[in-house]
Amino acid sequence: MRNIALRLSYDGSAYHGWQAQASEATVQQTLERAVEKTVQHPVHITGCGRTDAGVHAMRYCANFRTDSAIPTDRIPLALNSRLPADIAVSAAVEAPEDFNAIGSCLQKEYIYKIHNSRIRDPFLDLRACFWPAPLDADVMNAAAAAFVGRHDFAAVRSVGTPTKTTVRTVHWCRVERDGDMITVWVCADGFLYNMVRAIVGTLVYASDGKLSPADIPLLLEKGDRRLTGPTMPPQGLYMHRVWYEGDVGRMMAIP
Amino acid sequence: MRNIALRLSYDGSAYHGWQAQASEATVQQTLERAVEKTVQHPVHITGCGRTDAGVHAMRYCANFRTDSAIPTDRIPLALNSRLPADIAVSAAVEAPEDFNAIGSCLQKEYIYKIHNSRIRDPFLDLRACFWPAPLDADVMNAAAAAFVGRHDFAAVRSVGTPTKTTVRTVHWCRVERDGDMITVWVCADGFLYNMVRAIVGTLVYASDGKLSPADIPLLLEKGDRRLTGPTMPPQGLYMHRVWYEGDVGRMMAIP
Repeated sequence: MRNIALRLSYDGSAYHGWQAQASEATVQQTLERAVEKTVQHPVHITGCGRTDAGVHAMRYCANFRTDSAIPTDRIPLALNSRLPADIAVSAAVEAPEDFNAIGSCLQKEYIYKIHNSRIRDPFLDLRACFWPAPLDADVMNAAAAAFVGRHDFAAVRSVGTPTKTTVRTVHWCRVERDGDMITVWVCADGFLYNMVRAIVGTLVYASDGKLSPADIPLLLEKGDRRLTGPTMPPQGLYMHRVWYEGDVGRMMAIP
Repeated sequence: MRNIALRLSYDGSAYHGWQAQASEATVQQTLERAVEKTVQHPVHITGCGRTDAGVHAMRYCANFRTDSAIPTDRIPLALNSRLPADIAVSAAVEAPEDFNAIGSCLQKEYIYKIHNSRIRDPFLDLRACFWPAPLDADVMNAAAAAFVGRHDFAAVRSVGTPTKTTVRTVHWCRVERDGDMITVWVCADGFLYNMVRAIVGTLVYASDGKLSPADIPLLLEKGDRRLTGPTMPPQGLYMHRVWYEGDVGRMMAIP
């Protein structure tokens, strides 16, 4: 059976996240319906991560199995003709039999966008977190450095998804300002539930002087979610990159 | 009674256009509700133009009358705190007693965005028209020049809104490509219903070789809507600039 890996992007504003639900529209269900119409049989699609309601993805990987003879390079246009404008498949590749979009993932990068301006902008604020109070991106970047490395991240996760361990390795975490837009980049071997949004809330706390960047190692050691910053809203969060070995990795690396 | 002019922008994706309707959410109604909560009495808001469902506005002008003593410079934040994220008021000014956002308007500019790429982009295609076939922006720009000047524009309007005359003066009409994005700018002393979308459809016809830029003067003279290009979809259209005299004009000129 062929194992097809897809590269896609989506604006999550209109969806209740990635994962299929009984009552609400999700990206997974919408994509499954488009694939099923294309390959003419029921499919289950595995995604590289569960994004929450309102979260976006610039580069997302998903895979499904099929006996259909459709040429791989025809799959993106075939799916796009059946998908709404807020989901687009940009590439497809035949993956090894044991490839799995979540299990085979080597590392992931999320970005978080903050529109830091006194005045809202309707063309930005559905896809960034509007934050009217001034933020200091340099202080935030100093605080971000404290998250890099192998740590127990229980202090910056929401309880909800069971997990064997709350230890992860953050490869990078940095903050840059470009005009009114502040972007936070976080890359790790894996993420706990709401981890990026809680890290960004903690960076905002650092900018506001509610904690010092030097406090963060101790806060991580204590592991108490009540001592770190708030979980930031979903519309600023994007799945930005996902890394794999082989052909799927090469497909996902295209800018 | 004070006459307050507002400068606002909106993403029209979620609205059934500007004008109030009995059953559907519109920008006018949403704004009126926010103003009424702020000034504590019923208001009627006059807009600078009726945009259709799905059409956006980067700079839009509206006015309303009130006896409220709220300082003018506090109005934008007061309204924004009551408006959804897809509508934002960026400035307010006290206008002359006889100012009217539509009647006092000197000229308007619309832009139309075409995302000309083989592959869709969810972060562009709700706010631009996705067009996968190659378009020649130079041919479109040559055709655009034929619309400039004082003409009868009956050939590029949809019937629907009664109007005394179908003669208008187009001050400029030009087309530029920036990567995958083609933008059409059209400025006129006034616009007929669907005029910009029909002009852009005619420019697309010119690019496709379905008509020649040299044909356009004769097509305008004939005034037959069936001979020009199609009405393009709404999501590419933006009210871009509106010109007035005096303080309102200065407010609307801020970049």
